[in-house]
Amino acid sequence: MELKFPKKALVTGAAGFLGSHLCRRLLEDGYEVTALDNLFTGTKNNIISLFDNKRFSFVLHDVTQPFWGQFDEIYNLACPASPIHYQHNPVETIKSSVLGIMNMLDLALKTKAKILHTSTSEVYGDPLVHPQVEKYWGNVNTIGVRSCYDEGKRCAETFAADYRREYGVDARMVRIFNTYGPNMHPKDGRVISNFIMQALSGEDITLFGDGLQTRSFQYCDDLIEALRRYMELPRGAIDAFCERHSLGAPVINTGNPGEYTIKELAEETLRQIPGSASKLVYRPIPSDDPKRRKPDISLAKELLGWEPKVHLKEGLAKTIEYFKTLVR
Amino acid sequence: MELKFPKKALVTGAAGFLGSHLCRRLLEDGYEVTALDNLFTGTKNNIISLFDNKRFSFVLHDVTQPFWGQFDEIYNLACPASPIHYQHNPVETIKSSVLGIMNMLDLALKTKAKILHTSTSEVYGDPLVHPQVEKYWGNVNTIGVRSCYDEGKRCAETFAADYRREYGVDARMVRIFNTYGPNMHPKDGRVISNFIMQALSGEDITLFGDGLQTRSFQYCDDLIEALRRYMELPRGAIDAFCERHSLGAPVINTGNPGEYTIKELAEETLRQIPGSASKLVYRPIPSDDPKRRKPDISLAKELLGWEPKVHLKEGLAKTIEYFKTLVR
Repeated sequence: MELKFPKKALVTGAAGFLGSHLCRRLLEDGYEVTALDNLFTGTKNNIISLFDNKRFSFVLHDVTQPFWGQFDEIYNLACPASPIHYQHNPVETIKSSVLGIMNMLDLALKTKAKILHTSTSEVYGDPLVHPQVEKYWGNVNTIGVRSCYDEGKRCAETFAADYRREYGVDARMVRIFNTYGPNMHPKDGRVISNFIMQALSGEDITLFGDGLQTRSFQYCDDLIEALRRYMELPRGAIDAFCERHSLGAPVINTGNPGEYTIKELAEETLRQIPGSASKLVYRPIPSDDPKRRKPDISLAKELLGWEPKVHLKEGLAKTIEYFKTLVR
Repeated sequence: MELKFPKKALVTGAAGFLGSHLCRRLLEDGYEVTALDNLFTGTKNNIISLFDNKRFSFVLHDVTQPFWGQFDEIYNLACPASPIHYQHNPVETIKSSVLGIMNMLDLALKTKAKILHTSTSEVYGDPLVHPQVEKYWGNVNTIGVRSCYDEGKRCAETFAADYRREYGVDARMVRIFNTYGPNMHPKDGRVISNFIMQALSGEDITLFGDGLQTRSFQYCDDLIEALRRYMELPRGAIDAFCERHSLGAPVINTGNPGEYTIKELAEETLRQIPGSASKLVYRPIPSDDPKRRKPDISLAKELLGWEPKVHLKEGLAKTIEYFKTLVR
């Protein structure tokens, strides 16, 4: 009889929106999953359905502290990601990025694990280049109220690139653009969760300015598919890819380049919640209105043979179903 | 009889080029000085003349580890600063910036010390704005071979700004532009040390391109004067200054806005070393030629009533005297 051991994955930020989807997917793919979260913005509710699985272990742990264990693959997702959360404690936010990646890179180095670090489109800041390509260096303030997130994430990329170059750690990075889906925090201040929660509760849906500014929305399952494909690639393919594109380290955008106006999103939300008493109302545009960003995903297409598949209508329907369970 | 206790200062990177000058100045000003250095790029030779002073203590310590003590003022200068040094160990370089500032901010927080952090013009990267003003956000690669220094320094600024905003730490920052003087490392790869060493040893002086690219050079004593004035300011004056300029945190450029061509520098060096057998030779410009940067120092002038005083001729003479003692 041949014994087959499952591959072991470590997921940080496992109880967060994206972490929870990744854990579920890794279990479906046959992995043994160790899920870390400090439950600051993540919630056990997101992963409670996984607790019965014998291949799943949850550890309440803060990534600013070292963590030890033997894994084949490390997925580093830990970091408060919405301004409402990260501005609650800026110092801990930047520590979770910087000390978190250091601890995970040290673990990867000493155990020879592969590591996939999730960076963000926020490293582009208020971009002067549209759509954003990976070689664009970004436009980011170092001392503003959003810097704890943006600069922490930029610095984490530098750490990963240097551990790879100096110590040979097999580190890979994605820059994740605006992503949505079930398990999003209902009060994270993002436009999709705002609109759905407003529509479900019959409050007016607030549009800023004329509502014609555009956004790109990636459904969570599309992102998870990209992460899995990326991790599966042999190291040689990634090295060759970096060489071919003169990239200092493997970093690729993942996002959905399809653009919708905020007004279209609001109207589609109301169409999918037909009984809603909500109306669209317009407010003056605030000075810190999130900037327009749209990913160039050519590199992800080339490297992973991947592109997003889930249409906004379909993803929105699934997200609304999820938010209904919260409101009930 | 009234007992008067000297003020206590902690200097990190104390055995480095700038740290050694700061220690000397603080002793002249009556301080008790604790000097930290891991002696990776700094050298005891720079501070050996201070060891006889009873108010001076040297501690061999790496700022990536916590340090404890009671001080009135903390000057955080530790970080390998020349590409030759920081590319020797990129991971330790970024750690010295990021963990160094964290440890010093934690110390400042718990002991209520003032802290002056030395940032760098490198946070502007390859600037798209000339001359550089403090509000310019910079143009920096996160995953290149220089990123360990640039992004580490950017992230350190963010830490200092957030400890100040969130925890009330009295943190102040300078962005130091190209500075020279005695105690510079003779092999740090900078143009002034290169030229003087070449001229003293009779080697040809290498100019890249036509030598007409310009640089700004600040003499070390001018910088130290700025640091001392900055630290002396009451907190209220700094808060008001930030308010007045809508600065997210107190950060000011210090540098000498006077510009010289590389050729002028080479010629002046040879004029001051009349016996030199060196000749100027021209080489093709390398692709990573350091970018032109010139500080806008209006904010430093306003806040500190300061501007650089030492002319290049005078500073160069003192620097050449120093390098002669090394060559002998």
